[in-house]
Amino acid sequence: MSELILTEQPRPGILLVRLNRPEALNAMNAEMIGELHRVLARVRDDSTIRAIVLTGAGKAFCAGLDLRGYGTPDGAADGEGRPQAGLRVQKHIADLVEAFRGARPPIIAAINGAAAGGGMALALMADIRIIADSAALHASFIKRGLSNCDIGVSWLLPRMIGFSRAAQILLTGRTIDAREAERIGIASSVESGDALLGAALGTAEEIAQNTPFGVWMTKEVMWSNLEAPSLRAAIDLENRTQILAAMTKDHREAVKSFLEKRPPEYLNH
Amino acid sequence: MSELILTEQPRPGILLVRLNRPEALNAMNAEMIGELHRVLARVRDDSTIRAIVLTGAGKAFCAGLDLRGYGTPDGAADGEGRPQAGLRVQKHIADLVEAFRGARPPIIAAINGAAAGGGMALALMADIRIIADSAALHASFIKRGLSNCDIGVSWLLPRMIGFSRAAQILLTGRTIDAREAERIGIASSVESGDALLGAALGTAEEIAQNTPFGVWMTKEVMWSNLEAPSLRAAIDLENRTQILAAMTKDHREAVKSFLEKRPPEYLNH
Amino acid sequence: MSELILTEQPRPGILLVRLNRPEALNAMNAEMIGELHRVLARVRDDSTIRAIVLTGAGKAFCAGLDLRGYGTPDGAADGEGRPQAGLRVQKHIADLVEAFRGARPPIIAAINGAAAGGGMALALMADIRIIADSAALHASFIKRGLSNCDIGVSWLLPRMIGFSRAAQILLTGRTIDAREAERIGIASSVESGDALLGAALGTAEEIAQNTPFGVWMTKEVMWSNLEAPSLRAAIDLENRTQILAAMTKDHREAVKSFLEKRPPEYLNH
Repeated sequence: MSELILTEQPRPGILLVRLNRPEALNAMNAEMIGELHRVLARVRDDSTIRAIVLTGAGKAFCAGLDLRGYGTPDGAADGEGRPQAGLRVQKHIADLVEAFRGARPPIIAAINGAAAGGGMALALMADIRIIADSAALHASFIKRGLSNCDIGVSWLLPRMIGFSRAAQILLTGRTIDAREAERIGIASSVESGDALLGAALGTAEEIAQNTPFGVWMTKEVMWSNLEAPSLRAAIDLENRTQILAAMTKDHREAVKSFLEKRPPEYLNH
Repeated sequence: MSELILTEQPRPGILLVRLNRPEALNAMNAEMIGELHRVLARVRDDSTIRAIVLTGAGKAFCAGLDLRGYGTPDGAADGEGRPQAGLRVQKHIADLVEAFRGARPPIIAAINGAAAGGGMALALMADIRIIADSAALHASFIKRGLSNCDIGVSWLLPRMIGFSRAAQILLTGRTIDAREAERIGIASSVESGDALLGAALGTAEEIAQNTPFGVWMTKEVMWSNLEAPSLRAAIDLENRTQILAAMTKDHREAVKSFLEKRPPEYLNH
Repeated sequence: MSELILTEQPRPGILLVRLNRPEALNAMNAEMIGELHRVLARVRDDSTIRAIVLTGAGKAFCAGLDLRGYGTPDGAADGEGRPQAGLRVQKHIADLVEAFRGARPPIIAAINGAAAGGGMALALMADIRIIADSAALHASFIKRGLSNCDIGVSWLLPRMIGFSRAAQILLTGRTIDAREAERIGIASSVESGDALLGAALGTAEEIAQNTPFGVWMTKEVMWSNLEAPSLRAAIDLENRTQILAAMTKDHREAVKSFLEKRPPEYLNH
């Protein structure tokens, strides 16, 4: 593992992932994106990791894609055309959205500083966001001659804050400060810089107190039902999932301990 | 009719439905769910009922499913397996979402106290919510080893308050108090406990002043167009519906009375 | 061009469109709707128009459809039945939603006064809304014996402010004042009447500072991805769009000028 992505387990079952290219405001190059994919692949089905906190080293969360490498792929294989190379590079970063979604542990973005372009996308693809009061989101692709609909943002942002606010932000390319991010429903809370990581780890632990299967199913079904073609189809998925959950030992322990007014003792998978 | 669901008509055209198992915080058992289905079936196409207010007797709105009966169906028919019995019980409650949606009269939940798990789902499946200042919503399935995606919640909540806020609430299982419910767009207003029922009946009367057909079509098309695969399909449904409405006698009376600056005299169907 | 719709270019690349029937509070008749369609058709693919501001002459934004002509089409061709004539008239106005969406330049509604019924729909079909502090939105179809699901409102409003708030507004037919419109996410900002047009033109110029192709793609993909059946499909569209954008000369100039810390010099198409 390179040093571009640092991981540690500050508390049992909680994985802290840190973007670690502070000298470039954690701008993502191909190597760093590859590392992030590998971290996510490792924990994808890991029931011992109960939640992930993602943050940036240094003063920024993530300045986005490294402009020097992006859109002009130097590493194009012999004979590879520009459209092919462009789409290959583009998919490498955009596929992170599905990697985040596909990871069993919920991912909490602790936005410690500027999140611009692809860095804003990285924050939005997490399940939950907590933001430092000095941080801000910058929808800045459009300032670089690109579409602001990138890396899932055109799908995610309107489903978080409504189409009207999303359109105004993405068409102008303006900055969203921490207070606004909280007020309009992007971030769950605003914290001082000193308190940010503690708050994110606290949310991770709140999640980890629930059963692993309950959390996994809640994350997976929520994302699926955002795509469900009808209420009926959404409920059909919910119903079958819930019967699966109701047949687990942890559900029986949860009900039993609740009725007996004692803390539950869950299995860890 | 058992006493588990009480109904009355406190004002002309307004049906008040009260969950009536206060000694169990109105936790729903199979009999109570069956009663609620029967009440909804009776008013489904009843044009004389113009709006429904749903509330709870005693201090709670609804504590959810009766844990003693849920997920371990004692009444399984001979030879019925656990998956079959589980899904049968599950559908009984989850089908309430479509029964609420299918009822011609809009349903206003007057949330008088705690709404937990299935009780929170019951509140969310209504068309409109008004909440007492001392009440709260508890996304507590996940605290019982289940998925928080249940009884329509994974479909409804993200479409009410956005995916980000919904994910944070459902993954942690945390409580939403009355003020937050109003601020983030779950409830239309917060009222003191004494004023709650009056406010809900007031909203019901506001709806009842509109034409029955206009209200019916507004409710039905809103729910359908939340599922419409495209803006074009949504507008096609709107267009045909509006021409139907424009051909009613009540529309002509509405326009005539408006131009003549007098109150309308609507037919009651 | 009749005088029912006035157009001018107060600043380079910005088109100001004014509904101009102030004596009828800008209520739309068939002629006026036809004019609006023609204006939109002219600028549909016009890359020199970078943004459009839509407002009303006089004290209202738009009082909706002219009730005297709507629903009882006097101009029905010989032998045309009521359903056919009704749907023809209905489509004439409802097709404005797709005309707004299809126009390359983003449309900013500067809501200078009352926006009622079809006038509220006109405000909602714009990409961005700015509202005068004395203005208000009136969901008033239902007060005229019609469905409040009309001219795209049942599709758009729940995707702007969530299903719960939208249902309460559309079922009651109540008024939304300017402050509430801003608070719940319909309008980007509230301005004094004197400052409204300046603020809308300011937003138009903010958009116009971005590259024409970036803005066009952002608008088109945002609207399409509101309809995308899955996150994957949404990202597939984003990816291909972004590679197109990355191959434009304006993208190269944007990156180059950014790295050279100088203002960009964009081509105008």
